[in-house]
Amino acid sequence: MKMLINVPETVVADALRGMAAAHPELTVDVENRVVLRRDAPVAGKVALVSGGGSGHEPLHGGFVGPGMLDAACPGEVFTSPVPDQMVRAATGVDSGEGVLFIVKNYTGDVLNFDMAAELAEEEGVRVAKVLVDDDVAVTDSTFTAGRRGTGATLFVEKIAGAAAQAGAPLDRVEALARQVNASSRSFGVALSPCSTPAKGGPTFELPEGELELGVGIHGEPGRERRAMMTAGEIADVALDAVLEDLNPKNPVLLLVNGMGATPLLELYGFHAEVQRVLTERGVSVARALVGNYVTSLDMAGASVTLCQTDEELLRLWDEPVRTPGLRWGL
Amino acid sequence: MKMLINVPETVVADALRGMAAAHPELTVDVENRVVLRRDAPVAGKVALVSGGGSGHEPLHGGFVGPGMLDAACPGEVFTSPVPDQMVRAATGVDSGEGVLFIVKNYTGDVLNFDMAAELAEEEGVRVAKVLVDDDVAVTDSTFTAGRRGTGATLFVEKIAGAAAQAGAPLDRVEALARQVNASSRSFGVALSPCSTPAKGGPTFELPEGELELGVGIHGEPGRERRAMMTAGEIADVALDAVLEDLNPKNPVLLLVNGMGATPLLELYGFHAEVQRVLTERGVSVARALVGNYVTSLDMAGASVTLCQTDEELLRLWDEPVRTPGLRWGL
Repeated sequence: MKMLINVPETVVADALRGMAAAHPELTVDVENRVVLRRDAPVAGKVALVSGGGSGHEPLHGGFVGPGMLDAACPGEVFTSPVPDQMVRAATGVDSGEGVLFIVKNYTGDVLNFDMAAELAEEEGVRVAKVLVDDDVAVTDSTFTAGRRGTGATLFVEKIAGAAAQAGAPLDRVEALARQVNASSRSFGVALSPCSTPAKGGPTFELPEGELELGVGIHGEPGRERRAMMTAGEIADVALDAVLEDLNPKNPVLLLVNGMGATPLLELYGFHAEVQRVLTERGVSVARALVGNYVTSLDMAGASVTLCQTDEELLRLWDEPVRTPGLRWGL
Repeated sequence: MKMLINVPETVVADALRGMAAAHPELTVDVENRVVLRRDAPVAGKVALVSGGGSGHEPLHGGFVGPGMLDAACPGEVFTSPVPDQMVRAATGVDSGEGVLFIVKNYTGDVLNFDMAAELAEEEGVRVAKVLVDDDVAVTDSTFTAGRRGTGATLFVEKIAGAAAQAGAPLDRVEALARQVNASSRSFGVALSPCSTPAKGGPTFELPEGELELGVGIHGEPGRERRAMMTAGEIADVALDAVLEDLNPKNPVLLLVNGMGATPLLELYGFHAEVQRVLTERGVSVARALVGNYVTSLDMAGASVTLCQTDEELLRLWDEPVRTPGLRWGL
């Protein structure tokens, strides 16, 4: 498996150096592996910190900036960052208004963010935490107790980020983040496995002519394998799974997310099928986002995330944001 | 080769339906295959039209919007659009101030845009044309007489688009587009082939352990094949080729562009190596853009484009833009 890298050992550090050079509006601490808003801490503002294993870019470092995260902690590929990184991020961005940790539900991340919260509080930082667990495909998988955290992370970071930017206090930002997570569900499919630099090849096998329904963002097994399906059939299965668990009465935010190697041309075509199914089910789409946002290295495939909105969530979604990976109005 | 599609015959139409649903700020004419600014024609403004084969998304449809293109014409995958599309685009966006056709140098595109220019002028539209031919890898390749047009297309569309948005007349917008092209050079590498829906598999063979230096954006052969190299070695070879042909005295715009399937993590790492080489060569980088902008379906690999700036080009680059694929300040 060929990769555009130097050696597997320096992949994350190399990427952070490249990120620093591309984004002067960020402070990228390559040695300590923390990405921060250059203007952090922002006086009077609750700060948002997230992080997780690398390999899902632009998540999370690419979502640091005004209107979204204050800092992100990248771990090794598909490996949780360590508590030291999270404490450094928290103390680096806390203005005194407190910090919200946004944690995808994987065992390592949960343990490490828990420990970091204790350590940061010992240093005088008020910390709240929200767990993202939107993936309906499986519970209690390889890396997770309960449901996995995937695409809804983007919705949580954007909407809680907008509330924090507007001056909401920590308990309100936390409550909104919980509401967004509780209102969101995701389902993903893989057409090909992903390859990690450390392994130098695919992390799982997926025979030609089959796809994995309900795959996780590290290539974790999903619900089942089937013979290859059309984009329309995949949209039906994905939304069956999502809508079995979420019955949106209000218009939804829709994320049609590429896993990494699926061309945008295919992703837009898949989005058309997702819209068809939602129309058939009577689900109204308030806003749609199509692209590669929560990726799995070079995996081919896509995921669908819905978030039931209300007036406030929609208003916060529309607020300006300026990050490398998501930007409008600034 | 698995793809997230319905059937190969409807891939482009399906993608346009999905694009229409994602971007209410655009008018997507699925039947006639034209993507336009919803507010076109914009009174008093020179209009920019581009287009080419599909499979390079977000180029060109994803670059339609204020500050960039007024319309784009998507052809079938890796196939030129037809003159009818271009004439429809030109007449749909012309405010009376004239239209600039931005044409990548591939034989089919050149012939069809030439014919479209004649037809549009018969309908009373003043048309100017600029040919983009920035790829230093080869001359007179499979699809092209002269050099191929690749990454510089983004620079031409952005900078000419900003000038048009600011009210520059047609001859000035055309002159700026020519200046940007003449000041730009690109070089690309492939780590894997791309697969077209029609073929259902790779368009060329690239053995495990080898890469293609100087590949075109349709998988056209480059300069040579070599045993796999590190990101640093690839950056050296790519910039050797570019800087042999361009000797920038002023700071450059830098595009580190993914071909489609290369993870953003790798692309940022490659960008760090490109910055290292430019520093060694004494080339100053004014602005850097890293991401998937001029893609080749699911090809793994990357390209590097430099554009020598002056004060005016840099100012126009920094002007606001609001398109699905490139956005800041609006």
